[in-house]
Order: sequence, then C-alpha cells, then structure tokens
Amino acid sequence: MKLLRFDLKMPLYEQLYKTIVDEIRQGKLAPESKMPSKRSLAQQLGISVNTVDTAYQMLVAEGYLESRPRSGFYVMEIEHLPQQAEVFGQKEEKEQPRWKFDFNTAGIDASLFPFRTWGKIQKELLYSKPQLLNRGQGQGDAQLRVALAQHLQQYRGVKCSPSQIVVGAGLEYLLGLLMPLLGEVIALEDPGYPKAKQVVSNFGKQSVFVPVDRYGLSVENLCKTSAQAVYVTPSHQFPTGATMPVGRRAALLQWAYADKNRFIVEDDYDSEFRFDLRPIPSLQGMDSRQRVVYITTFSKSLAPSIRIACLVLPNSLAECWNSRYANYACTVSRFEQQTLCCFLQQGYFARHLSRMRNEYRRRMLCFKNELERCLGNAVQITGEHTGLHLVLEFSKGTTEQLVQAAQKKGMNVSGLDSYQTLSNLLTKPTVLLGYGCLQNNEITPAAELLRQAWKEFL
Amino acid sequence: MKLLRFDLKMPLYEQLYKTIVDEIRQGKLAPESKMPSKRSLAQQLGISVNTVDTAYQMLVAEGYLESRPRSGFYVMEIEHLPQQAEVFGQKEEKEQPRWKFDFNTAGIDASLFPFRTWGKIQKELLYSKPQLLNRGQGQGDAQLRVALAQHLQQYRGVKCSPSQIVVGAGLEYLLGLLMPLLGEVIALEDPGYPKAKQVVSNFGKQSVFVPVDRYGLSVENLCKTSAQAVYVTPSHQFPTGATMPVGRRAALLQWAYADKNRFIVEDDYDSEFRFDLRPIPSLQGMDSRQRVVYITTFSKSLAPSIRIACLVLPNSLAECWNSRYANYACTVSRFEQQTLCCFLQQGYFARHLSRMRNEYRRRMLCFKNELERCLGNAVQITGEHTGLHLVLEFSKGTTEQLVQAAQKKGMNVSGLDSYQTLSNLLTKPTVLLGYGCLQNNEITPAAELLRQAWKEFL
Repeated sequence: MKLLRFDLKMPLYEQLYKTIVDEIRQGKLAPESKMPSKRSLAQQLGISVNTVDTAYQMLVAEGYLESRPRSGFYVMEIEHLPQQAEVFGQKEEKEQPRWKFDFNTAGIDASLFPFRTWGKIQKELLYSKPQLLNRGQGQGDAQLRVALAQHLQQYRGVKCSPSQIVVGAGLEYLLGLLMPLLGEVIALEDPGYPKAKQVVSNFGKQSVFVPVDRYGLSVENLCKTSAQAVYVTPSHQFPTGATMPVGRRAALLQWAYADKNRFIVEDDYDSEFRFDLRPIPSLQGMDSRQRVVYITTFSKSLAPSIRIACLVLPNSLAECWNSRYANYACTVSRFEQQTLCCFLQQGYFARHLSRMRNEYRRRMLCFKNELERCLGNAVQITGEHTGLHLVLEFSKGTTEQLVQAAQKKGMNVSGLDSYQTLSNLLTKPTVLLGYGCLQNNEITPAAELLRQAWKEFL
Repeated sequence: MKLLRFDLKMPLYEQLYKTIVDEIRQGKLAPESKMPSKRSLAQQLGISVNTVDTAYQMLVAEGYLESRPRSGFYVMEIEHLPQQAEVFGQKEEKEQPRWKFDFNTAGIDASLFPFRTWGKIQKELLYSKPQLLNRGQGQGDAQLRVALAQHLQQYRGVKCSPSQIVVGAGLEYLLGLLMPLLGEVIALEDPGYPKAKQVVSNFGKQSVFVPVDRYGLSVENLCKTSAQAVYVTPSHQFPTGATMPVGRRAALLQWAYADKNRFIVEDDYDSEFRFDLRPIPSLQGMDSRQRVVYITTFSKSLAPSIRIACLVLPNSLAECWNSRYANYACTVSRFEQQTLCCFLQQGYFARHLSRMRNEYRRRMLCFKNELERCLGNAVQITGEHTGLHLVLEFSKGTTEQLVQAAQKKGMNVSGLDSYQTLSNLLTKPTVLLGYGCLQNNEITPAAELLRQAWKEFL
C-alpha cells in the first residue's frame, strides 16, 4: 500500500485513513481480507505505529474494518456502498438588485438605531451573565415577558399576564405555531399581508378572503364566510393603512363570541408609528372573553434583522399550546432577549420610539409635500397617519404600468394589486411607497425621479 | 362633564379621552348626542382648547365620535361594545428547580464560551455594519452560508453548495419547515430524541418507531414499515450514543433509493464532540442521489441559548421548499449570523472546538473514573466516545427508582425510558448523565452523591 494522497495540510493518519477507504471502496481491499499489522504497515510506509493505530481505530469506528481480538484487523463486508458523492456545482446566488431608491414597505432607517446603547447593554450582558448561554424558558425569559407585558399594557392597552406571552423569532414562526390551534378555515384581509396568506397555506388551512374598505376588514362580509378564525390588522391595515373604528371592532368581537371556536388574530405590526395621536389601543384590550390572539414584532421599532416578535395567547388556548410546544426551545437568542429586556426596563425603548416617531413623522410630511409638489393633484396620497408607507392612488394608467415605470428608473415600488387575491376589488391604480429607508437628502431627488417616471400618468 | 380620572402621570388629553370613553361605554353619553364644542368644554374644565382637540381627534380616530363638518362632534352609535377586559390574574410562573448537580444532557459549560472574541466581533459588526439592521436573505446571509458550506465540508464531510443551506433558529423550527415536504409516515429512532417526535406529531404526521441497537437504527426493521422518511442520528445516536457503521449507512441509503419519495433526515446534533478520533463523516457525504437532508445546530458547540442551526437541503427538495418559504424571513438575527460567520472564517471556531473537545474529554475521563470508583462493577458505563453524556446500565432496581433516588438527593438525572415509545425494548435499568454543566471541582462530590443515592442498587 502507498499513501495515495499527499497533502501537507492533512494529518498523516487522515491521509492513511482516506487511502484505505478508497481501496475498500474500489474493491482493492477485498471483504474479509486481513489488514497488515500496525507495526508492519508503519514500517512499510515509514510512519509511526501510533499514526497507523489512529487510522485503524477510525476505520473500525466507521465500520470499514473489524478488530478481532488476538488476530488483527479485517476488512468488513459492506453491501451497496454508494459511490462518493460529488460536490454539487456552486449554484449562482441571485444578486439582490441595487435600487437607486428603495421604497419597500419593510425598510427602516438603520441610522436611527441606538447602536451605542444596544451595544453597551449587549456587551455588559455577555460579560456579566455567562449563565445566559444555557438554555432558557421556551416561551422566552421570564424577565423579558414581564417587561413586555408592562410595555404592551402601557403602549397598546394589551391586558395580559407574562405567562400568556410567547417570544419568538418573527411573525411567520409564531403564526405558524398558532395555525394548528385554529380551525380549518381562516379569513384573511384582502388586500392583505402576503406572509400571513403564505403561512395559512403552508399549514394546509383553507383561506377565505374578506374585502377591506376604508374602515378595515368588512365584518359584514366576514359573517358570510365559514371562517373559524380571522387574521386582521385593525390598528393600521396592511397595506391600505385603514384604522378600524371602535364600532366595527365591537362587531368583530361579537362575530368571535357567536361561536366558542372562533378566534381573532390581531397583528399589531407597526402600531408604534401612529403620528398624529397616541396609538389606538389594541383590539385585544377590548376583548372580555379570551378570543383575541395578539401578535406584534420589533422588526420596525428596532430593526427587521433583529428577530424578536411576541404573541399574547388567550388563556383559552394555553393548554392546547402547552401540549404541543412545552418542549420547544425559544427561537430568540437569550442575549438579544435580555438586551431588549434592559432596553425596555431602563426607559431606552420609550425614548427611542419617541425619537423615531418624530423623525419619521418629519420625513413623512416632507416626503408627502414633495410628492404633492411633483405629482400634482392627479394623485391622491393617503396613509399618512400610521406606519412607514404612503398609498398613492392614480386616475390614469394601470398599477402594473406605474410599478414598471418606477422600476425602469431604478426605483423599487410595489403595487397594491400584488397584495390582492380577489379580482373584483380595485378600481383605481394604486402604488405603495415605503419611506423607512429614505434618507433626508434623498427625499427631493426621489420625488423628482418619481415624477419623471410617472409623467404620462399625471 | 368632570375629569373622572385624575392622575398626574397621565397627560390631560388622555385623561379626558378616557373619561369620555367611559361615559360612552356606560351610556351616559347617548349615541347621536352632540358633544360640547371644544371651546366650551375647555372653558368648563379649565383646560386648553388644544387638549380637548387632541382628545376629540383620538376619539374620532377610534370611532367613538364623528366629526360633522360645520356642525361639531357627535357620539357614534356603537352596537355590542364589550365591557372593558380586566387584567388577568398574574399566573404564577413555575420556578425552575435548583439542582445540586444538573446532569441534563443539553447543558454546556458556559465558562468555555469565547466571550472576548465573540463580544469583540459582535461589537465591531454593530458599529461598522449598520446595514445589517435591514432585512437579509430568507435562507440566511450568503457570506454565512459560504462559511458554513466550507466548515461542514471540512469537519463533517458534507457536500453542498451554499445555495442548499438554510439557516434557522433551532432544530424544532427547521424540522418543522421540512415536515410538509416529506411523506405522511415518518420513522423515528426508539429510544430517540423527544423533540423530533413532538415536531412530527405537531405536523399531524404519522410516526412509526424503529428500534435502535448498538449500531444505531435497525434498517432491517425500518424496511418493514411504510415510512417515507426517517429521522436518524447516525454519528451519535441520541440517547444511546451508538455510531452507525458504514455498512448500515449504505443499507440505509439503499432503503431511500428504493423509492423516489423516500428521504433521510440526518440530525448531526453533537458530532463535534467525538473524543477518541476524528468525527465520523456525515451520512449526507455518502449520499450520491440527493436523498439526505442534513441538520446540525450550534447549541452545543457554541451555546444552547444562541439559536443557530442549519439545514442542508438536497436539490431534489429545493423547488418545493422555495414555493413555500421563499418569502419567509430568516429567524436568526443578522448580527449573530455575521458574528458566527467571522468566527468561522477567521479560524476562531476551529480553535474553540478543539479547546472544548480537549476540556470535555478530560472531564469525561475524570468523571467516568470517579463513577467507576464510586459505583463499582455493578454499573456498566458507555457513551464515552462522543457527545456530552454517559449512559449507565444497572443490574438492579428500575430506571424510575434510580431517577427518583437521584432526584431525592437534589440531582437532575434522566432515565433512558423517558426517551422510549415502544414498550418492549429495554432490558436493563439505564440512566443518562450529562456532564456538560459539571465543573471540575464538582466531579468527585457529584460521583460521591450518586453513590449515596444509588447504594442499594449497586
């Protein structure tokens, strides 16, 4: 036997191991044949007995050789040994397109992130609390849940105890956990949030689509469906921006109360960004019968890449939840959980929110003004009260033409129709402009470029 | 109207808002009745007109009042307004029991964690790459996937391109995403990993249990089932510690190749901790026909609380995966992704692994010696080659008695039977002792205390 492979970087025992594996695979070393003794092979190859011993032990551990007491090492009989797999061609990763201006509705301004404070808390935790490396509670760390319960009560009127809170890595994950607990038919807003629709479909549930008007989801239409649960964004309907008034909220709760298996999933995704007034309290806070599941995320108030979301489970679903998920580990790193916890408890989050709200409000007003100046009266702009995107309604052209015209000029714009499922909803061409990513000095050139892109539709 | 609430901490407009909401809810302000003008209410209450205006705007936004042009504000007709929900009783959080010695199999020694390096990389990224706050790729950041592909190739013989890798927050999550892509009947090892069983059952799949012998899952028994997929831990069977030899691995692949819809899910959960020899290459690396889904996690090699796991998808499942999950955001924070990426690329991980392996090996040998000294020949100790737990087989007593006796002395020990589903498997009473959490100075007292707990079974 020769060392077929020769690689200075590879330890000798590994080279020997690989050589023998190759010979067994190629049939050069027949099943049941006796291997040379460690000593003689070492001598033959000019390597140490220890090296041969290590290679032989590896081959025994993997089942290529068998060690027979007081006899030596034998090649094992292995049926159906597949050929070595090759590395697959390095499939090209698709390059993300580079936009001149990116109006995606999920973007935020990274420069507003409180790097110093966040970094400081994170570093302190890393050094002072090594025990955070060990496994925490599946629902999320208790301290964080206490802080979240207080925060949600204070800011969103959510009424819950920390034991009802589940912390998880994003909406899709938490909504996915929830799915098996709900009935088979789920009502969704139309137009609505595509990820919610995707999660419902991934869990093999049947979706029914309920139209949204200027007061949000139509409860009248919901009542005509056979849905046992409804996913709804009452504070700031995505993407239309409608806020559901209290009367309709009451009617929605009545719909749930009419059957003991009906539940409402309230996604309160960007309610922190209500600019004109205090954010409207959550639907969950109005619910007196434990039928609302509340979900919110820190994707916008902190950053989309920090994956912390939370779900408030009504007590009526707690038992069912525990029987399925009691053993699941929490999907959020404990260091990030505890960083957020300190951030909430020490008042940093409140300050950060108010700073962001002021900044985005200023930006929104400025952007809206520039759009009005550039686009004129032919375009109706709404959605300025909440969230981080504006809704533009045109009288000419089609949504597709508008989106394509903007993309041709290097701008990422989405059309309302891409959030729609029902075909008979939209009358006017409508596009969404997220301004979360837009820097102050980009506002005027962005509005100008949009005018150029859309001049034939004005 | 009087301000019913008086709270120095609450802004005046909010007090007014709450007062009016209460009056509407209690019927004191009847539907359709006209509200006092802003000016007169301000005068009556001795507050500014602005304050009243803010409160009225909030009430309009929420649908309690309606603003009629050139007339004033009117109370809206609201049907079925539910009573305000009360905060639920603060359910007691269960206290985690405090153990004198915790032998849980998932624990690690936090003091081995490379705090300085990890913290330094994390901090640098936070300051130098604010763009990491924005949303990344759903499969995980490309740079991390490149680094993972190299790492898995080098350490585990996994053959894949970065485009096959999906990064996610833990095994339960990734396994959950995989479930709908597999057939309806899933084979599981018995005894086996309880979380895998839970995920299979949560997705409504049918489980069939296949016994494990000293070479791991019995392929002969697997062939007798109607399973279309099998979840298997070939490198280090959990919890028995068996390593599947190459012959059985080949037979397992043959089982998958016999039907085009069969898949093998290889969970390579703690293969980094093979002490005696180089870790045994993955089953995935032997697969020539894209039928193995490889899953691994950094729970043990970094920390259980840092939730980074990854899945290598065979190309045969890629299309199906994308149609379901292309829009899902990655569940791991980008800062942690990029920290791990630097950690891998700059060689820190390799050094960390080798340091951990040496330390745990020393600890395992020491613990095993102490156990042998204290417990004598009546107990057979196995599982010393891989992972972070030992398996102890007794000749007397029952597993339940052994576990209870240890718990009575304040020690957290699990019995093999708690990982079993089939009833006819176990002959001897067997317990598992995880030593990941055990400090050096605890080894002797822990072994002594175990002797005291188990003296009647020796």
